[in-house]
Amino acid sequence: MIADRRTKGRLQVLELIRRSGQIARSDIATEVEASPATVTAATADLLAAGLIEEIAPVSDAPQGKRGRPRVALRIVPNACKVVGIKVSDRSMSVVIMNLGGETLSEIEVDLPNSELAPESLVEVIIEAVGSACKPLGLSMSDLSAAGLGLAGFVDADRGFVHWSPSLNQRNVQLKSLLNAHSPIPFFLDNDANLVAKAEQIFGEGQGVSDFVVITIETGIGMGVIIDNAIYRGARGCGAEIGHSKVQLEGALCRCGQRGCLEAYVADYALLREANLRAGPELSQSPDDALKELLVKAKAGDAFSSSIFNRAGRMLAMGLANVINIFDPKLIILSGERMQFDLLYADEVLDAVKSWVVSVDAPLPEIRIHKWGDLMWAKGAASYAIEEATRIAVRNIANAA
Amino acid sequence: MIADRRTKGRLQVLELIRRSGQIARSDIATEVEASPATVTAATADLLAAGLIEEIAPVSDAPQGKRGRPRVALRIVPNACKVVGIKVSDRSMSVVIMNLGGETLSEIEVDLPNSELAPESLVEVIIEAVGSACKPLGLSMSDLSAAGLGLAGFVDADRGFVHWSPSLNQRNVQLKSLLNAHSPIPFFLDNDANLVAKAEQIFGEGQGVSDFVVITIETGIGMGVIIDNAIYRGARGCGAEIGHSKVQLEGALCRCGQRGCLEAYVADYALLREANLRAGPELSQSPDDALKELLVKAKAGDAFSSSIFNRAGRMLAMGLANVINIFDPKLIILSGERMQFDLLYADEVLDAVKSWVVSVDAPLPEIRIHKWGDLMWAKGAASYAIEEATRIAVRNIANAA
Repeated sequence: MIADRRTKGRLQVLELIRRSGQIARSDIATEVEASPATVTAATADLLAAGLIEEIAPVSDAPQGKRGRPRVALRIVPNACKVVGIKVSDRSMSVVIMNLGGETLSEIEVDLPNSELAPESLVEVIIEAVGSACKPLGLSMSDLSAAGLGLAGFVDADRGFVHWSPSLNQRNVQLKSLLNAHSPIPFFLDNDANLVAKAEQIFGEGQGVSDFVVITIETGIGMGVIIDNAIYRGARGCGAEIGHSKVQLEGALCRCGQRGCLEAYVADYALLREANLRAGPELSQSPDDALKELLVKAKAGDAFSSSIFNRAGRMLAMGLANVINIFDPKLIILSGERMQFDLLYADEVLDAVKSWVVSVDAPLPEIRIHKWGDLMWAKGAASYAIEEATRIAVRNIANAA
Repeated sequence: MIADRRTKGRLQVLELIRRSGQIARSDIATEVEASPATVTAATADLLAAGLIEEIAPVSDAPQGKRGRPRVALRIVPNACKVVGIKVSDRSMSVVIMNLGGETLSEIEVDLPNSELAPESLVEVIIEAVGSACKPLGLSMSDLSAAGLGLAGFVDADRGFVHWSPSLNQRNVQLKSLLNAHSPIPFFLDNDANLVAKAEQIFGEGQGVSDFVVITIETGIGMGVIIDNAIYRGARGCGAEIGHSKVQLEGALCRCGQRGCLEAYVADYALLREANLRAGPELSQSPDDALKELLVKAKAGDAFSSSIFNRAGRMLAMGLANVINIFDPKLIILSGERMQFDLLYADEVLDAVKSWVVSVDAPLPEIRIHKWGDLMWAKGAASYAIEEATRIAVRNIANAA
């Protein structure tokens, strides 16, 4: 526990150095509110682990004062490299990233099926990581760790998948299965949690201690950061918004229950309504059909508008409940989906405001962050970096 | 920050000693996972503050082994005394409690009105505390701190009331107002948060790091303990379940919005439906009317049963959403209300189970804890004890 606390302190210092670009020890002490001796011990460990380096002293004394030039510290970007993988409905994104957060290589791989047997998924993943390594002249064993993001209910601590739409079985010890076929350790989490991690490290959540990320694609995901850490709940099933109920005995959800938010807002929910009438007019491909539906709605077609309208109101209700329950500083609607234009419209945000408990304090800020599908894989890579550096720092602490 | 961390560590040790009755330093070190030196320093401060005392050494070596008798530590129950106050709809409970958690005196005071002007409420509170002190031969200045629980949206850090049904104004700096009239510092919080505190210290939440408390009375309250601390959110408005929406454009709530859980489950919601037909048959007093309605429902009256039935299903939906979002280890339904018999019935709990995301892991335990109205005031007193000891320990730490 004492060693854990020490590791945690070192990781906090490492993260601060990464975020700062370069920073002197005395400024680290101020920022993390620790004694100079503690900071010196922490940075000595990080230097020994090769994760950071000293750079030429620069004088940063205020004008008119003589300052002793101070040695600054910075990350060694290539001190370790990791891979991040996001499994989507019928494809998989793979990113190789270094400690500095630089993307070294990225590929997109088609999956044979939405649902795979655990062994097949492992096989496809290992092969794809190999393909992403190739152009860099690396093999998988040159990497320090792998992060994997999956939709569904994932117990990150155990690497256990209660259920995922990407697997044809429930209750899979996927981490063990991956580790049995991999030269580097795998770390798994729910994909929306990893988007929250990506927002925290690279995106709109930088420097914000408490925020909520909502994602919408085939399903609806939520990642919650409380006190700078992902909130996971007791069984690793926390922060589940998509299957929270917004209507007693409401619309049927693909999870088999009724009235889930997802059953009103997700891709399949919109298309289910569209199929009532517009079926023959829309493309077979769900992605294309959704785009066509959006075009119709924007052109003023009442039927199509009504579909987005209700979805937007249900989403607003879900967001208002998230604010009522978590009262976060910031909500990030993260992703780049066509339908966001309508779902994230001003009317939806106005509805959120009118359904939040009314106090004369400013509402949490709601930011829309449109970034590509790569963010999912980058989030997974960020998780891998975190775990790889945790291992490196713990080894140094134990050796000391 | 270093001093804060030290204070936090000492309070953790104090709480462990309180919970244990008596405990040796070496066992404290094991329990809090700290070094013997750290524990010795912490207990020295607590001894100096007069909050704990050493008791005669007892040998607790296992049979057949020779053990060196160890000095145990225990709380000095009367090291400080505090007052806890809970403001209810038309009454107020006041409890004087000592550091040992013993109730020294308790009184119940009628309020002239449900809604009071801030100055009037302060006056009534100060007078009631005086009355509770009297039989003990104490005056208010003999106490160390006061804790106050109010329904509504309370920012505990600032002691600021965004809104409370007990006040005829919004945005009241109630803490300053109280402190201006009181010889001892006041600490305010939302009343359900204080029930969670009471459950953590005296009730079903002892030793549980993460749990949720739900209360039902005139409104519906929720208190959330995450990592042993009350979760409050960014503006002090977090963990708001009563005004979370369970129905788009649903029943009108006393907050002015529609579809709030409270608008289906709270006392006034049940009576509003009952008044549709049963009005003339029920007593004028809301409490009596509710009891009569419950008797009718239990006797099989379809109209009355239907009222409780829908309320129960809406409550189940709210509880399922709490589980989906927080995934706590334990949910405590806390309180002693007539209608709980029906609202907390097996059918409601079964509905909760069927609406929680289904994973093959055990559901969080749901415990019903029926304890009297005094729990609210005891929760407020617990908060006062926590803050009073924090001040005492911080003073010692700063003096050292």
